[in-house]
Amino acid sequence: MVNSVAVIAGIGNGSGTGGAVARLFAKEGYTVALISRGPESLNALANNIKTNGGKADAFSVAEYSADEIATAFSSIHARYPSPEYAITVAVFNVGHGVWKPFLQVTPEDVRESCKVNVEASFAFSRAAILAFQKNDAAQLRSGAKGTLIFTGATASLRGNVVTSAFASGKFALRALSQSLAKEFGKEDIHAIIDGGIATGNTRGDRNTPPSGPVENQKPAGLLSPESIATGYLYLVNQDRSAWTWELDLRPAHEKW
Amino acid sequence: MVNSVAVIAGIGNGSGTGGAVARLFAKEGYTVALISRGPESLNALANNIKTNGGKADAFSVAEYSADEIATAFSSIHARYPSPEYAITVAVFNVGHGVWKPFLQVTPEDVRESCKVNVEASFAFSRAAILAFQKNDAAQLRSGAKGTLIFTGATASLRGNVVTSAFASGKFALRALSQSLAKEFGKEDIHAIIDGGIATGNTRGDRNTPPSGPVENQKPAGLLSPESIATGYLYLVNQDRSAWTWELDLRPAHEKW
Amino acid sequence: MVNSVAVIAGIGNGSGTGGAVARLFAKEGYTVALISRGPESLNALANNIKTNGGKADAFSVAEYSADEIATAFSSIHARYPSPEYAITVAVFNVGHGVWKPFLQVTPEDVRESCKVNVEASFAFSRAAILAFQKNDAAQLRSGAKGTLIFTGATASLRGNVVTSAFASGKFALRALSQSLAKEFGKEDIHAIIDGGIATGNTRGDRNTPPSGPVENQKPAGLLSPESIATGYLYLVNQDRSAWTWELDLRPAHEKW
Amino acid sequence: MVNSVAVIAGIGNGSGTGGAVARLFAKEGYTVALISRGPESLNALANNIKTNGGKADAFSVAEYSADEIATAFSSIHARYPSPEYAITVAVFNVGHGVWKPFLQVTPEDVRESCKVNVEASFAFSRAAILAFQKNDAAQLRSGAKGTLIFTGATASLRGNVVTSAFASGKFALRALSQSLAKEFGKEDIHAIIDGGIATGNTRGDRNTPPSGPVENQKPAGLLSPESIATGYLYLVNQDRSAWTWELDLRPAHEKW
Repeated sequence: MVNSVAVIAGIGNGSGTGGAVARLFAKEGYTVALISRGPESLNALANNIKTNGGKADAFSVAEYSADEIATAFSSIHARYPSPEYAITVAVFNVGHGVWKPFLQVTPEDVRESCKVNVEASFAFSRAAILAFQKNDAAQLRSGAKGTLIFTGATASLRGNVVTSAFASGKFALRALSQSLAKEFGKEDIHAIIDGGIATGNTRGDRNTPPSGPVENQKPAGLLSPESIATGYLYLVNQDRSAWTWELDLRPAHEKW
Repeated sequence: MVNSVAVIAGIGNGSGTGGAVARLFAKEGYTVALISRGPESLNALANNIKTNGGKADAFSVAEYSADEIATAFSSIHARYPSPEYAITVAVFNVGHGVWKPFLQVTPEDVRESCKVNVEASFAFSRAAILAFQKNDAAQLRSGAKGTLIFTGATASLRGNVVTSAFASGKFALRALSQSLAKEFGKEDIHAIIDGGIATGNTRGDRNTPPSGPVENQKPAGLLSPESIATGYLYLVNQDRSAWTWELDLRPAHEKW
Repeated sequence: MVNSVAVIAGIGNGSGTGGAVARLFAKEGYTVALISRGPESLNALANNIKTNGGKADAFSVAEYSADEIATAFSSIHARYPSPEYAITVAVFNVGHGVWKPFLQVTPEDVRESCKVNVEASFAFSRAAILAFQKNDAAQLRSGAKGTLIFTGATASLRGNVVTSAFASGKFALRALSQSLAKEFGKEDIHAIIDGGIATGNTRGDRNTPPSGPVENQKPAGLLSPESIATGYLYLVNQDRSAWTWELDLRPAHEKW
Repeated sequence: MVNSVAVIAGIGNGSGTGGAVARLFAKEGYTVALISRGPESLNALANNIKTNGGKADAFSVAEYSADEIATAFSSIHARYPSPEYAITVAVFNVGHGVWKPFLQVTPEDVRESCKVNVEASFAFSRAAILAFQKNDAAQLRSGAKGTLIFTGATASLRGNVVTSAFASGKFALRALSQSLAKEFGKEDIHAIIDGGIATGNTRGDRNTPPSGPVENQKPAGLLSPESIATGYLYLVNQDRSAWTWELDLRPAHEKW
């Protein structure tokens, strides 16, 4: 019996979507491979999962770049050799959030947004798909050879007055997820974008707008990380006759 | 303990989405109230569910019109009185499919599409929402006072060369579902449209294109009704922090 | 030399989009055939155009229904016989606006929305396309055999809390326009929807929300009818290598 | 009387959209400032415009990067000093096209797509908006202080099997254009994306798929560059009561 590995990139402080997904998939029996910056939070999460009877390992990166992501996947392959293990789930929960009026956005902000949202996501997808292609779908718990989930945002779907750089990155991620869904569906590889919705206004109410890379931490009172994780589990378990590409999620009381 | 009732309109011959949803929700403990034309298939499904230990009743209508739908709901209320029962799920799985070049579409086709897709869906929504508003969310299995699901189609999202009348009806249904989601979310009533995707080409390959009202029967080889039903159950069980409005579903190998 | 006829349905009091389109196309040399309820305003507009040197005739209807639209087109054909005349432009500027909380929407409101927004638009499209198909594109000023423009609204694209009935009708109109664009483009017949945008908020600020059929009159301070008419003229003059299906228009200072 | 300057980036060999826009705007009296790689084609176009009585200058860049774009704008400002000149139109017609199966896309391809489609477009937008903000709208031929047009593509709207890198870049561009339209509309600065549509299938038929940076050259038989240019002129001349954000254009006979 092969052990299913779920690779999750973007953990932040462990209290957001990445952490919730890691805990839920560990509880479901997956071995979770955690890629993140910030080794302290990362190790704390891995230890917390292990304390609760799950299997988890931390793969720290210095930054979210194509090279670092590729290196982390090499370490993951070394740690979980085939055929005992098979990577069957990969979640890219990394985002580079810059909320600034356009004229304050620097070339470095744009460069960083490209690096994290686009270049790192392409590298992550490449590594995930190459791993999935080696799997034997028949042996695995779902009919898919693998499931690749990208965490989106309102900014995946709409540009807005302070989100030019963030929305550009998230739109690019949505394009990537759609291209992959179309190209690899016929190989039983399932690519999805989560269109978790938090309106601009609601985000604007936060006292501490994020700056620098964030891991899609949802503000309290908005989307619950645990509910998002439940959605991801549903997506991973969808059988091949009915796959979703884009899942919108928003709080019931949200004005939209 | 209150008994949850799921009202499902549009059963067809029982082998499609409506039938699969009825069987799954009955298995989950719901009392299923089935609204459909064609009393023979309708009764057969209700009996089949009862034979398998579920609770089901048939509410036959002569046609899918605002009046008939309203009458069926009156019968449902009489059959399942409060407070022993509470209607918590309502699925509008009815569609009027006309696939014709535009110049062959008659005023009667358009009239019928309006009656079934628009007028009947408004009446169904009204009855469902009025029922949901009486519910006490705290008493029920999900945090919602009620969940209202509309079965969509590719034609909810795209008009095409032979779908002017069908797409008009399905677009109207999508508008209704979005308006309701926005208006009633804050009352903990969850409205959703299922964007089940079957491409025009694939449908066009069928030897016997549907004519007259159909109940969204999915051609074999496309979306599995059972998988759609599983999706509906996930939607009904979503907690209020993360609700979906539109769920796209398509077979893994579908070209799109 | 053939005389080009532009048929314009939905004139209202003559001060909105329908009136502006009629005046501009008359100035451009088109013979304008005006279909509308309210014979007084209708005749006033026709006379005003004639006073300014244009050619215009009024074709009054008792209501916007499939039958009345078909009858009006018969009168237009009788008034402008081929081959001296050719109908080359048709503008459906009719809308049935109901802005009400959902539970206040009556079955009659829904029925009326279907009749005006869907059944009348199908009848209008049918008559326009049958007329266009007789044209010889080479003889006409644009490369198209005919151009069919539908006036949309924000509600063509988004349902909202008080627009369930209106949005259903406008979504249906959008589906129709897309189906026609796809089916008849290869016959050099150009179908377009104008996505003129007025946000819900802005509309909500108006003291006198419209009720009953309106002819897409734009509130002052929002979209200028003359600017919309200029857009329609651009669309009619597009050559066949670059046709637009959906034109969004919104005031520069609009928040969106 | 101030001289209006139109800055156009991405000329290619001069026979595509960039060249057609340059020629049309020169004919309309604009001084055209041409930014492009390939000095030979660039100078040939500038000379051709001058021979035909227009005003044009070439601003050659070694590559489409943020730095090179910023430097080119500095040269343009030096060449066309205020108050005699005012930059009122800016067209970003640059695209980095890579059509490859995903697993053949290299990190360098992604990096280059980001550099050209995202980083260069941000730098171009910044320079254009800073120039527009200095303008006095009342003095200029249109009510806008400036119009910023991005050339899109089918890939702005849909990812597809061989367009992961290209679509990511074009989606990002669309996000940028929408963010700018929302942020700067109230300053009378008009941002637009042209959604010129060429279906994947049609493109797939071409014998020589583009590789490396292209300047949105449209294959023969698809969109005519001159028709696109006519569309851009219409957009630039829209008055502020009715602005378009996204203009879709496709050939009449295109299947979609």
